[in-house]
Amino acid sequence: MIRYPNGQVYEPKENNEKKDRKKPVALDNFAKRGMGLEDDINLSNDFYNASGRCLIYKRPTPIRVVRMKDGKITEAYFSEKSTTDYNGVYKGRYMDFEAKETINKTSFAFANIRPQQITHLTSVLKQGGIAFFIIRMKAYNETYLLDCSVFLPLISTCGRKSFPYAWLKEKGHLIKEGYNPRLEYLDVVDSLYFK
Amino acid sequence: MIRYPNGQVYEPKENNEKKDRKKPVALDNFAKRGMGLEDDINLSNDFYNASGRCLIYKRPTPIRVVRMKDGKITEAYFSEKSTTDYNGVYKGRYMDFEAKETINKTSFAFANIRPQQITHLTSVLKQGGIAFFIIRMKAYNETYLLDCSVFLPLISTCGRKSFPYAWLKEKGHLIKEGYNPRLEYLDVVDSLYFK
Repeated sequence: MIRYPNGQVYEPKENNEKKDRKKPVALDNFAKRGMGLEDDINLSNDFYNASGRCLIYKRPTPIRVVRMKDGKITEAYFSEKSTTDYNGVYKGRYMDFEAKETINKTSFAFANIRPQQITHLTSVLKQGGIAFFIIRMKAYNETYLLDCSVFLPLISTCGRKSFPYAWLKEKGHLIKEGYNPRLEYLDVVDSLYFK
Repeated sequence: MIRYPNGQVYEPKENNEKKDRKKPVALDNFAKRGMGLEDDINLSNDFYNASGRCLIYKRPTPIRVVRMKDGKITEAYFSEKSTTDYNGVYKGRYMDFEAKETINKTSFAFANIRPQQITHLTSVLKQGGIAFFIIRMKAYNETYLLDCSVFLPLISTCGRKSFPYAWLKEKGHLIKEGYNPRLEYLDVVDSLYFK
């Protein structure tokens, strides 16, 4: 699925392109509900930010601009982030996290995480920031918060290519789901980092 | 001047467009040195990040994608940031700032600051983050750090449309310039927020 930097889903409309060329297709919040982990987190952040509980933004997907003409970008490509999906501030502290989901029933493959993201999150920890993954096991419809200070050292030392579901249940923290926010992940953050 | 999200300057090359269409024109760090406040801050952050003193990134300029074809963006436009230019983590705390320069000799016009940026920085302060402006008076080649908790209330209460240079000298903090980092702004941050 291709997305705009604001999270909207891009839907090609070849048939009525001329009629509708200036309008990216937007899905409203209701339609997006439950579409995927990223949507759930975005909706949760909208709620959290609006209520003043935190200030967390999704980093825009970087776009490599190749050509421009008269102020219009005429050739460009989405490129990979060298950092993570989300960062911001909560109770004065810096918070940075990446969201991943897997359909695998037994484990989460480390290959899902890019080396630059490991480097970035390691730097966040060194700077005293809060760093974690939000990992969804789609097979069980369970979403876990996994603290990077526990998780990152395991990637290099565990001698495996994936993180078993059993470890996730043991070392991760199940995030409660609700209506608003969809994912009550700040409650887990509170219990882990602000005891 | 039009910039790519990575800070590279865009230079239209109509004459040899076909020959060179895949290569954006890059200026190396040396050529960029002293080109402007943004370049000075980017170089300073490169140095600070590489030395492990902090982790500060420039937010990419958001791009509104209108049309795509076969994975290629064929129509898009740069849009305005609703947040600030820079954010990241320093000594565990969230840090967020905006950089502005003016050629005016007597004051810095509030019109240079977008209302969404005031809203955003007010929220950062509410969350206990560090928020400031870096303002350069080009006429004097002086760069000041101005704490938002001092500056933001003044915007609405001072009854003026600009911030006098004399106030900047009184309420701001002159940033020492050097070779590496170009702007030693973290020394000011240390003296203000980590006494």
